[in-house]
Amino acid sequence: MRFHTRKWVKPEDLNPNGTLFGGRLLAWIDEEAALYTNIQLENSKIVTKYISEINFNSSAKQGDIVELGMSVVKFGKTSITLNCEARNKMTRETILTVDNIVMVNLDEEGKPTPHGKKRLEYVKDRLKKTT
Amino acid sequence: MRFHTRKWVKPEDLNPNGTLFGGRLLAWIDEEAALYTNIQLENSKIVTKYISEINFNSSAKQGDIVELGMSVVKFGKTSITLNCEARNKMTRETILTVDNIVMVNLDEEGKPTPHGKKRLEYVKDRLKKTT
Amino acid sequence: MRFHTRKWVKPEDLNPNGTLFGGRLLAWIDEEAALYTNIQLENSKIVTKYISEINFNSSAKQGDIVELGMSVVKFGKTSITLNCEARNKMTRETILTVDNIVMVNLDEEGKPTPHGKKRLEYVKDRLKKTT
Amino acid sequence: MRFHTRKWVKPEDLNPNGTLFGGRLLAWIDEEAALYTNIQLENSKIVTKYISEINFNSSAKQGDIVELGMSVVKFGKTSITLNCEARNKMTRETILTVDNIVMVNLDEEGKPTPHGKKRLEYVKDRLKKTT
Amino acid sequence: MRFHTRKWVKPEDLNPNGTLFGGRLLAWIDEEAALYTNIQLENSKIVTKYISEINFNSSAKQGDIVELGMSVVKFGKTSITLNCEARNKMTRETILTVDNIVMVNLDEEGKPTPHGKKRLEYVKDRLKKTT
Amino acid sequence: MRFHTRKWVKPEDLNPNGTLFGGRLLAWIDEEAALYTNIQLENSKIVTKYISEINFNSSAKQGDIVELGMSVVKFGKTSITLNCEARNKMTRETILTVDNIVMVNLDEEGKPTPHGKKRLEYVKDRLKKTT
Repeated sequence: MRFHTRKWVKPEDLNPNGTLFGGRLLAWIDEEAALYTNIQLENSKIVTKYISEINFNSSAKQGDIVELGMSVVKFGKTSITLNCEARNKMTRETILTVDNIVMVNLDEEGKPTPHGKKRLEYVKDRLKKTT
Repeated sequence: MRFHTRKWVKPEDLNPNGTLFGGRLLAWIDEEAALYTNIQLENSKIVTKYISEINFNSSAKQGDIVELGMSVVKFGKTSITLNCEARNKMTRETILTVDNIVMVNLDEEGKPTPHGKKRLEYVKDRLKKTT
Repeated sequence: MRFHTRKWVKPEDLNPNGTLFGGRLLAWIDEEAALYTNIQLENSKIVTKYISEINFNSSAKQGDIVELGMSVVKFGKTSITLNCEARNKMTRETILTVDNIVMVNLDEEGKPTPHGKKRLEYVKDRLKKTT
Repeated sequence: MRFHTRKWVKPEDLNPNGTLFGGRLLAWIDEEAALYTNIQLENSKIVTKYISEINFNSSAKQGDIVELGMSVVKFGKTSITLNCEARNKMTRETILTVDNIVMVNLDEEGKPTPHGKKRLEYVKDRLKKTT
Repeated sequence: MRFHTRKWVKPEDLNPNGTLFGGRLLAWIDEEAALYTNIQLENSKIVTKYISEINFNSSAKQGDIVELGMSVVKFGKTSITLNCEARNKMTRETILTVDNIVMVNLDEEGKPTPHGKKRLEYVKDRLKKTT
Repeated sequence: MRFHTRKWVKPEDLNPNGTLFGGRLLAWIDEEAALYTNIQLENSKIVTKYISEINFNSSAKQGDIVELGMSVVKFGKTSITLNCEARNKMTRETILTVDNIVMVNLDEEGKPTPHGKKRLEYVKDRLKKTT
């Protein structure tokens, strides 16, 4: 799993108890899943269809750095299944993991459509192809 | 299930495809679960511990009204388990349901502690008792 | 008056003195008035035209739950007049009341247009009619 | 009346109908009233106590510039009464006016306390005095 | 230099160390530069092209009032160059200054286009001309 | 330069012209610089002291993915100097570069203090050392 996006826990991200608001973390994860899918499927018309169970193992406090990792579990015909981990950058303690996030590839009318991808691609390889 | 909080889908709640950003909806649900637990357990020191799988059945667009409903599935010793539905107010179409959201009751040090509740209480009954 | 939407006072809702920022509360009320009107008039093209005087009786602090209630004062020809109360969910202490909020029903060009409603309707009754 | 703070109407400030969300404008006004009071009373512990009726004369759309003006109506013993206008910078069309916003001066415990001010002061004059 | 827009430093504007988040201040400045340009060039299709070096001389804490000042350094053919200062309203301490912010005037297609302005204009003078 | 944090350009990130609001991008960069410094210096008490000139080469539109890269230019005694690039993930087009961002290491009282670092460290190596 590769960790990309990092978030700095600021006052606006806290719940009234002074720890990271869980809903904020879920929003960060959903955005990261959308980003990752967008890049893999080369299509920005995508939606979150399913999220498997979520266990909150630990939290984070103001000033902590949260790092989000994604990897592909499966390439479906019109979908892609990701797994995800959110962890504390300095301690590497896991905040939560999600085994399956199913993202669906849509056409212009917003209906599921095949994406034609079967494996991970890296942008640098795509750029070579177009040369 | 009783539906309380309503949200008006505004431009700031949309994903780049112009539909309700899923992460925003998850944040709304987590906040509503915290509110509901807070009221039931008469304690504001609570955390989200577990969220069961989430199916996105439909979405919402700008100007739609989303209504959030919660009910109690189980009173544990130090926790409470809720289920949740988000629906479109006008059509009553279900946007998503979550079968189990486990919220944990904390003491001052942030450790799980018994909450002593065994059934739903209504604020109006509590107010009577104190008369 | 029926109370629906609930808000959890988070750090991002505070003024620099650490109490609920009044402007945030006014924004919540305006949104709830728009939602309520939208549902009653079955039209999302509506605007706030007038808000009568506002007395701030009490405030709220971080972690408090604010509950917003609305009811209809009068059905006009092209408008609807609401009254509103914001209160603390646990203590039922009133934070503020507004006697009259006038919302206007608009047509596609944004001009006032009759809404044809004369009394409160509930969504469950509307759904029956369409069966 | 002197106009200071200017706001650029961005997508995040719109209601679902694409015009300036009234609640956002009310939040801007409450913040400006607090700022203005803070400067005049040389005290940051202040609260909004009362807002007189508000007429929405016109609205604003994305990209418009809204300018907020404040002036003092009356210096009370523990309070200050302001009036306010929000207008469109380019056309000078009035969006709304508020005749009376009563702000109260608080002590450390959050109770009303005399502020000792009787007339407008300008920061440049205060700086002279301390020279 | 004339100071217009004022900001009240609220909890949502702080970094995790409890002082004004620098990125928030930069966003405020960019917005003010866009507003100022918009008014001077009578065109809302404008972009930030260049910002010269920024020295942070001091910071601000919760409850402080930040005041933003702009003036024109040069009228170019398709651009305008501004300088900017952010200061603390009560102490007049400078938070930061920026010598050159270059804003470019765009046509409908988003390409640089001459703006035809050679000197500062005030809105009151423009209104006279149209009488 | 290693690119970590990715942002999805959402409606709330746009200026009124419908392109990425420059101020939002500057806020993202300042946050990323703080994060990066925090990790390198193993201290969360840090401030932005200086940002060298910024050229906006291109912009981004709704739905685009912006990727932020940082690297260390110099380790000072109490500071660290970074350079930064923001680019479009799919096309790898550069949006802007900043040659020098100086971040200062602070002690508990908020005064500059030596950080004792002389070269890049990776968290995985630090974890080994503590084994």
